[in-house]
This record gives sequence, structure tokens and C-alpha cells, in this order.
Amino acid sequence: MTTPPDVSAAIDPDKLDRLAEVAVKVGLRLERGQDLFLTAPIAALPLVRRIAAHAYAAGAGLVTPLFSDEEVTLARYRHAPAESFDRAPAWLYEGVAKAFSANTARLAIVGDNPMLLSGEDPQKVSRANKANALAYQPALEKIAGFDINWNIVAYPGTAWARQVFPDLGEAEAVGKLAEAIFAASRVDVADPVGAWAAHNAELKRRTQWLNAQRFDALHYVGPGTDLVIGLADDHEWQGGASTAKNGITCNPNIPTEEVFTTPHARRVEGHVASTKPLSYQGTLIDDIAVRFEGGRIVEARARRGEDVLQKVLDTDDGARRLGEVALVPHSSPISKGGLLFYNTLFDENAACHIALGQCYSKCFLDGASLSPDEIAAKGGNKSLIHIDWMIGSGTLDIDGLRPDGSRVPVFRAGEWAA
Amino acid sequence: MTTPPDVSAAIDPDKLDRLAEVAVKVGLRLERGQDLFLTAPIAALPLVRRIAAHAYAAGAGLVTPLFSDEEVTLARYRHAPAESFDRAPAWLYEGVAKAFSANTARLAIVGDNPMLLSGEDPQKVSRANKANALAYQPALEKIAGFDINWNIVAYPGTAWARQVFPDLGEAEAVGKLAEAIFAASRVDVADPVGAWAAHNAELKRRTQWLNAQRFDALHYVGPGTDLVIGLADDHEWQGGASTAKNGITCNPNIPTEEVFTTPHARRVEGHVASTKPLSYQGTLIDDIAVRFEGGRIVEARARRGEDVLQKVLDTDDGARRLGEVALVPHSSPISKGGLLFYNTLFDENAACHIALGQCYSKCFLDGASLSPDEIAAKGGNKSLIHIDWMIGSGTLDIDGLRPDGSRVPVFRAGEWAA
Ligand SMILES: [Zn+2]
Ligand SMILES: [Zn+2]
Ligand SMILES: [Zn+2]
Ligand SMILES: [Zn+2]
Repeated sequence: MTTPPDVSAAIDPDKLDRLAEVAVKVGLRLERGQDLFLTAPIAALPLVRRIAAHAYAAGAGLVTPLFSDEEVTLARYRHAPAESFDRAPAWLYEGVAKAFSANTARLAIVGDNPMLLSGEDPQKVSRANKANALAYQPALEKIAGFDINWNIVAYPGTAWARQVFPDLGEAEAVGKLAEAIFAASRVDVADPVGAWAAHNAELKRRTQWLNAQRFDALHYVGPGTDLVIGLADDHEWQGGASTAKNGITCNPNIPTEEVFTTPHARRVEGHVASTKPLSYQGTLIDDIAVRFEGGRIVEARARRGEDVLQKVLDTDDGARRLGEVALVPHSSPISKGGLLFYNTLFDENAACHIALGQCYSKCFLDGASLSPDEIAAKGGNKSLIHIDWMIGSGTLDIDGLRPDGSRVPVFRAGEWAA
Repeated sequence: MTTPPDVSAAIDPDKLDRLAEVAVKVGLRLERGQDLFLTAPIAALPLVRRIAAHAYAAGAGLVTPLFSDEEVTLARYRHAPAESFDRAPAWLYEGVAKAFSANTARLAIVGDNPMLLSGEDPQKVSRANKANALAYQPALEKIAGFDINWNIVAYPGTAWARQVFPDLGEAEAVGKLAEAIFAASRVDVADPVGAWAAHNAELKRRTQWLNAQRFDALHYVGPGTDLVIGLADDHEWQGGASTAKNGITCNPNIPTEEVFTTPHARRVEGHVASTKPLSYQGTLIDDIAVRFEGGRIVEARARRGEDVLQKVLDTDDGARRLGEVALVPHSSPISKGGLLFYNTLFDENAACHIALGQCYSKCFLDGASLSPDEIAAKGGNKSLIHIDWMIGSGTLDIDGLRPDGSRVPVFRAGEWAA
């Protein structure tokens, strides 16, 4: 047994503590007496401990962490009989769903090795994922339905850090990824909780303005891009803090920079070029260029990873249509860092993006009350996939188009126009 | 944040792997297709990984580990509001009970800091324990009722190792405790699974002989000891492997050296002296000497920790009576090591012992079908406590007394007489 060097010493302990504080006070806005269920890779233990301390200090009833270990996961792929890959801990997930029903808050720490299973039998991986997704369904419904306050934050796991900084040593890579996470999560300032209040207010101001405009479409112009994205009927812009059904206003994602809504699946015309590489299940897809007609991608190229892109587009009809349109200024901290994180939680907040595939029902006025058919009739897209890719840059202009044909500047040179 | 040195390098990896193998193949005798739920301190991760590998290689369906962390536990005592200490994760334990009902096997790795909560408010500790015990009840019933195969093994946690070896450095203490655990668990031999088969056969031979004898009482004679312990009516001797209700024959405790049965709570006469110190909730009780009349302790002294002993005896009436009598030869590996482990899993297997307090219903013929009243009528004791203490040594003689008054040598000079 060789024991790897402890790399957590490379992580600034004060900023880690502030990340924990932000996760509890901003991400979850945990209420006194609320229990907290959290999941984390064992490597994230230093963050879990700080989160537990902040959660209890905020009046938590009970903090219950569930740790995962990559070696235990791999042991299954290496040693388990074939029939193991259809099993999932239904008893555990049913319990989690019960905890959510009793108003337990939910925190997830991400930071695993993104390539952990890349060498394993894809059949086994997909069977295990399917069994797990099925068993997790009762709990996921309560998260997707926003029954309770929940939050995702990141911890710089070693394998992830080495993927982001392949030329650095282990400890240095972890230290640098940690700093990038801290900056993106806005905890590298004196008063992170105050900074988040200001940031949330700014995002709210943007969504309110956009919702008041009631644009019919957005017109994107930039290098390689001339695209009109129709917006869904009764679309609603969202962003920043939002209120769960239990009445708690939380920030599900730390970081978050985007304001986003639902495009119209049948009203997208023109061409668009990606501005950052897209990391999809271990493959890098770069320099994407696609052309839309009637909302559907009718032509697609990529300088790198085009075969994977074509496979993705062939998933189902909705995979060729848009499910999300999101605005992020070029000056956002994640964009300024210029780093590819290989993780959507960060990368989708680096630039204006669009997503192929499934739309969010919450991005409609009174979205919770709409049936799938009603959502489809309003222009909401449906697909098994939801893949965000970046089309923003410092040279992107966006106009809002009113139903009467008049234009309102929304972005100029990658920044909010007003 | 200071990161302690990684002490797991001090643990022999081959023996650790054999301990994992013994836990899976002997302790649990895990069956192909069975799921496994295991609990462990995070420090025991190297053992958990090996157990996961052996469990999957043995055909496990799914291995689900639940890790605990001492710092997260302490964060609650340091920061949580008062009302937190009445909370417990009922949703989790109900799930665990459900898993047991679906034939999931159970493994517990012990090795926590035995003194972790010794500096905390005893009121909070006892409230938290009570809430937890109450919530855990549905799962515990299935363990106590032996519905499924289960097993406890030990891992040399750092704080535990330093308690056992206070004069050694951290890594050295962990390494020495590891070796002591390996020796006690019989994995320091070439074929541990074979060694356990032989050991189980030997324990079975002893219980079969004792059960055939149907002794009315045992007579103990040694330095400071002249004691007659009546055995309960319809008592049954147990030891080593035993068969759970799911049909799997497992070894719930690794290590185990004892054969044991239920004494008669009202038929114990004479005096007895302890031969090893008893570690009770952080206090060492040493050189105990007690006198029994009619099964009840009427006089008790201890050279050290007598006040704690007296408090224990005052818990309830059953605390002054015996609930277990166990035979362990002086040549057993744990006895030969001469170490005080401060952990009953090991210390009760170092010498012949008796236990104050609650008896085991399974130590009666057809015990599962007996009501508490029937057990009491046969001489089974009832108490909130069950505390084992050592009365065996290399100079102890034990005779079995038949109902007709005849005597059969059982132990001579600390060893089996036949
Ligand atoms: Zn987005
Ligand atoms: Zn998205
Ligand atoms: Zn015992
Ligand atoms: Zn006992």
C-alpha cells in the first residue's frame, strides 16, 4: 500500500472555511432546526468538517454526511459479478426522499475524478447508472421539484485538479484549482456573504428587466455567429437565488453567474460558433459550428470531436433543438479566469451559452402547474440530453427583438448593454 | 489546518488484506448476490477498500459503506444548539432495517477514539445516545434477533492505538496495535480461513461437550477466588460460528475465543477476584473483589475505580447479578499477548470472564421462543447493563457440578482439563 502525499495542505484554510460558510448561509440558507443531508467524496473531508461546523453554528438539527470513495466504486468494476450492475441502494434513496419530505436540506460536494470510469466497460457503467437513477428517482423528484433548499459546491479533488492543470505537480494543481474555485465562488473577498447578497441583487435586477421586456427573440451577432433565438411563449428568466417550496430562498449552484430561460424549440434560425471547448463525457469537442432552420440543427461541424457531437445530435429529435438560453457577461469572474474546468457547474458560468436538449419547466410563468404537453405547445423542448455549450465572448452583441419588430440592445461587446 | 502524518503506512498491507478476507469469508460468510451494508470510521478506509474488493469477489450484489468522522461528531458538541441532541437520523436507520429485511448483510468496523466524547457535556452525550438508540431500534432488533449474517472487526485507529501504547509515537503505536489485532483475529498465519475453520471446530467441540454434560453449576478456585456459579435451567452453551435466521453460518465477532452461557441469577455463592483491569467508559477499574450471596453481590471492593464500580452496581437490581459466564483458555492468542485493548471485543476474549447484568436469551435451549418472564423463571438475569470482567488466569481451576453432586474437571491451571 502506498499512501499518496496529503495534498489538502495546498488549500488555503481560511478561504475553505469561507466556502463552507457561503454553502451554509447563501447556498442553503439553512434554517435553525433544519437537518442537513450531504454527500461528498472522502477527499472533500476538510470541507465537510467546516460545513458541519457552520451548519451546527447556524442551528442545524443534525448533519448527516454520506461519503463516497472512488476505490470502493472501482472495486465493483474490477471484482463484482455481472448481475451486480443492476443493483442500487433503493433503501437508502427511499430514506433520503423521506428525509426531504421532513424538510431536511440537501448539500452536494462535487470534485470527483471526472475520468474515474473512463477505462471501465461502458455497458456496466450504463447499467449501473440506470439502476442508480431509477432508485434515486423518489429523492430526485423532490430536488427537481425544488421542495427543499439545496446546494452544490465544489472541492478540488486531486484527479480533477490534474485534469485542469496537467503540467503541474499534484499539490500545486490542487492549490491552483482551489484558488480558481474560491474566486469563482466569490469567497476570495473579505465579506463573501455580503458579496453574494450584492451578486444575487444584480442577477435579480437583470431577470426582472428581461422579464419586463417580454422579448419575442434574441439576435446574436459575433465572429461566426448570426443567430436569432426565439423565446418560448410565457418564458420566464431565472437566475441567482430562488425560493424553494419550503419557503427558503437559496442558491442551488455555487458558483452561478447566468440568467437563463427557455428558448422556442421551433423558432431558431441562423448559424452560431462555439467560443470555448465543450468537455463531454471525457471527450473534448472544440470549434463547433452549427446552422439552425425552424429551430432544428440542420448542419453541424466541429474541428475536434465531431463524431461525438454527431452522435449526441442523433440521440433524439430534441437533441437537435435548444432547451436553454443563458446570458453571462464576459467580465464574470469565471470568464476572466480563462480556465476550462471540465465541469458544467463552472464552465457554463464562464460565458453566454445555449443548451441542446431538455428545457426547464421552471423557466415558464407558473411553470410548476404546466403539463408536459402544455410546455411543448409553448415551445419547450424535450430530450434525454441537456448539454450546455459556450457561445459568448468579448465581441458578442445581442439584441432583444420585440413582437413589433423593434430592437433593444441587451449585450454589447460581451457585456450588458444597460 | 494541520494535516497529521498518514499512519496507515505502519500497517502491514498483506495482513490487512487477510483481515478483510476473513471478515468477508468467515465473519460474514457473504453469499453470492447478497448486498452488504458496512459502517466504519473514515480512518479505516484502507480496510473498507479491501473488504469491498473481497466482498465483490465473493459475489456481493452491492457494497454500501457509511463512514463516520470524529471531527463532524465533535462539531455537533462544539456548535449545535441544545435541541440538536434529541435528533437522530431515523430515515437512515429505517432504511437500514429495510435493507436487513431484504437480506442485506451487516459489517461494522470499530476503531474509533474510545475517549472522543470524554470532554463533552455528559448530559448532551447521553441525550444524543438515547435519541440514536431509539431511532436505531428497528435495525438493531434484526441484528439482535440474528435475522441476517453480521460481523464486527477492528481497525487500529490512531487515538485508540495511542491509548493502548501511550509511550510510543503515533505510527509505531498504530503499527503495534495493528499487529495485535491481526494476531487476535488469527490472520497472522498462512491460511487464515483454514485457521478459522479449525478454531470454529474446536469451539463447537467444547460447546457440544458442555451441553452434553448439563452441569448444574461451575465451581471456580484460584487466588482470591472460591465461587460457585449456578447455571440457568435449560441453559445452552454457545461459541464460535453460529447460524443466522437467513440460514448463513457466520462469526459475528472477529476475534472470538469464548464459549459462554447464562448463569442462574439467584444461585451464585462465594467470592471472586478480577485478574485483569476493566476499562469502563474511560475509567479503569482494577483489582475487583466481590462476594455473592443468593446470586447477589453483597460486598464489592476495587483497588482502583471503586466509586465507579459502586455506581455501576447501583444501576438496578440486575446489575448486582450475573448475566453471562464465559470460558477462555489462558493460552488463547489474546491472553498470550498480555495487552489491555480497552475494547470488549478483544478484552473479553483474553480470559475466563463473567458479566454483570443482562443475559442473552439465545443462551437457552430454544431461547428465541421464550418470553422475558420465562427467561427470568429459568434464572436469566435482567438489567440495563452488561459488563464483562475477567476472572481467568493460569492458576484457575474450574469443576463442573452435576445435579447429583459429582464433579467433572473443566479447567485446570487455566486450560481445558480434557
Ligand atoms: Zn445554464
Ligand atoms: Zn444548462
Ligand atoms: Zn463474553
Ligand atoms: Zn459479555
